[in-house]
Amino acid sequence: MSNLVVVGSVAFDAIETPFGKTDKIIGGAGTYIALSASNFNVNTKLISVVGGDFPEEYLVLLKSKNINIDGIQVLADKKTFFWSGKYHDNMNKRDTLITELNVLADFDPIIPDSYQDCDYLMLGNLSPEVQQLVLERITNKPKLIVLDTMNFWMNISHEALLKVISMVDVLTVNDEEARQLSGEYSLVTAAKRILKMGPKYLIIKKGEHGALLFSNTEMFYAPALPMAQVYDPTGAGDTFAGGFIGYIAEKDNTDFNTLKNAMIAASALASFCVEKFGTEQLNRITPKLFESRIQQFINLSTFNYL
Amino acid sequence: MSNLVVVGSVAFDAIETPFGKTDKIIGGAGTYIALSASNFNVNTKLISVVGGDFPEEYLVLLKSKNINIDGIQVLADKKTFFWSGKYHDNMNKRDTLITELNVLADFDPIIPDSYQDCDYLMLGNLSPEVQQLVLERITNKPKLIVLDTMNFWMNISHEALLKVISMVDVLTVNDEEARQLSGEYSLVTAAKRILKMGPKYLIIKKGEHGALLFSNTEMFYAPALPMAQVYDPTGAGDTFAGGFIGYIAEKDNTDFNTLKNAMIAASALASFCVEKFGTEQLNRITPKLFESRIQQFINLSTFNYL
Repeated sequence: MSNLVVVGSVAFDAIETPFGKTDKIIGGAGTYIALSASNFNVNTKLISVVGGDFPEEYLVLLKSKNINIDGIQVLADKKTFFWSGKYHDNMNKRDTLITELNVLADFDPIIPDSYQDCDYLMLGNLSPEVQQLVLERITNKPKLIVLDTMNFWMNISHEALLKVISMVDVLTVNDEEARQLSGEYSLVTAAKRILKMGPKYLIIKKGEHGALLFSNTEMFYAPALPMAQVYDPTGAGDTFAGGFIGYIAEKDNTDFNTLKNAMIAASALASFCVEKFGTEQLNRITPKLFESRIQQFINLSTFNYL
Repeated sequence: MSNLVVVGSVAFDAIETPFGKTDKIIGGAGTYIALSASNFNVNTKLISVVGGDFPEEYLVLLKSKNINIDGIQVLADKKTFFWSGKYHDNMNKRDTLITELNVLADFDPIIPDSYQDCDYLMLGNLSPEVQQLVLERITNKPKLIVLDTMNFWMNISHEALLKVISMVDVLTVNDEEARQLSGEYSLVTAAKRILKMGPKYLIIKKGEHGALLFSNTEMFYAPALPMAQVYDPTGAGDTFAGGFIGYIAEKDNTDFNTLKNAMIAASALASFCVEKFGTEQLNRITPKLFESRIQQFINLSTFNYL
């Protein structure tokens, strides 16, 4: 079984959408990525940091999903990262209400020895400096490194971000971020430019409009599942990333056909994520539900042109 | 060979985009639909009206594509419908600068006897009253009737529109129009409501984000081809409609698998349309180019999930 190392925040989120609001619940990119990847036969090992205020039950939840949490530092005298956001209208816009970095402010990622046999590495959205530290501290060379980032880092850590982008195999961003990073409006042209920055593959996430996978010679489109109701989009992009790398790690194959299927698996898992608040629906996915959701994607997009 | 009857405007357009502007060129829903359908082995018969100012060469162009123009009335003492529009930014917004209805103001569609053997009927975007007149004046029952409309008619002819919608098999609208017509934001819920209005199938066009086909029990998504450059989106929706009905008429089959392939053919033809101003690129499509574009769609969206 492949070893998948994930770095990302494990945090408190408080979310408000037109359908309701939550108290502080478990959130963070690392949480969503690891929970999503836990749907595959891989050894998922999480690197993160939380404060003394982080409930033991949340750590137990991660462990119960066979996620190795040896790499989660618990800083007893500090507080866990906290994000609060409010979604408007039709979920297309959100305001960040609160961002308390707390333990993330000077996160020094420690890689347990048991994580060094890393086959696949997922660098979840964090400062590019921390992402690079993780890359450097993992001594063997992973078969595939995926990096997720966001516009925030493009604005405040552009150079550091370009450096870490140059060191990975796959970059995932959303459409606006691809445009910002490349300075190009057309996603096709944006992809060409970004692939020149180093990665072999680029994934552009378009939310309800699906996601595109680009290599220098190929292009694949994975649809999003049209849904009657989206309750909470929080974590959907991280869930997508976790599904993508989880599928690849399970198949232990990095050819383009495997990456295409990984896009479908990723989209299917993201479609679960938005059905309830926070991680609620991710915790309910069974192999049977997952398989049936994949079949919905196959039905949605398969044709046999004559 | 199936007989396809198309009704729609044959008009002058003057278009401005960030890439340039045109003088008065040939345009109109009927033109785009018929040119698009002419890529299939069908007898395409166009019903429309133009003024005495309409250049003979444009009619010759349509005839050269094997489009029957016996149903185009030429009103010598009147002027052709004229539309002028300007696209902004990234083609997502356009302003209508001029709309001169002219001959369309009191268009009384005449159906030549040679059009009565209609197998497939495409009601292009026009007032719902005129669309209904055409429906009534074609005496045999077509195997499939497709109706295209737009928000304009939802605003000023809501009742007449609902009536004609109840009489057709397939309705095509864009995402905003589907929301307006149904009063629902989710396209899945919107589709459910609209299918209750009469049509067996609904197509929701999402421009650069592809198009969805709904029946009461099935859903299919056709991607749009990501493009390095979109020169002029004018007519893309009509080209889509013409490709959709053209493919179905050629196959002479209305099962869901045929409709799915028709969505791909429609998307491929629409992708040509936007590559140049007006109908320029549509006039250059060869069977070989068309086949190769279809292959791009297959490559873009085919996966074999394991």
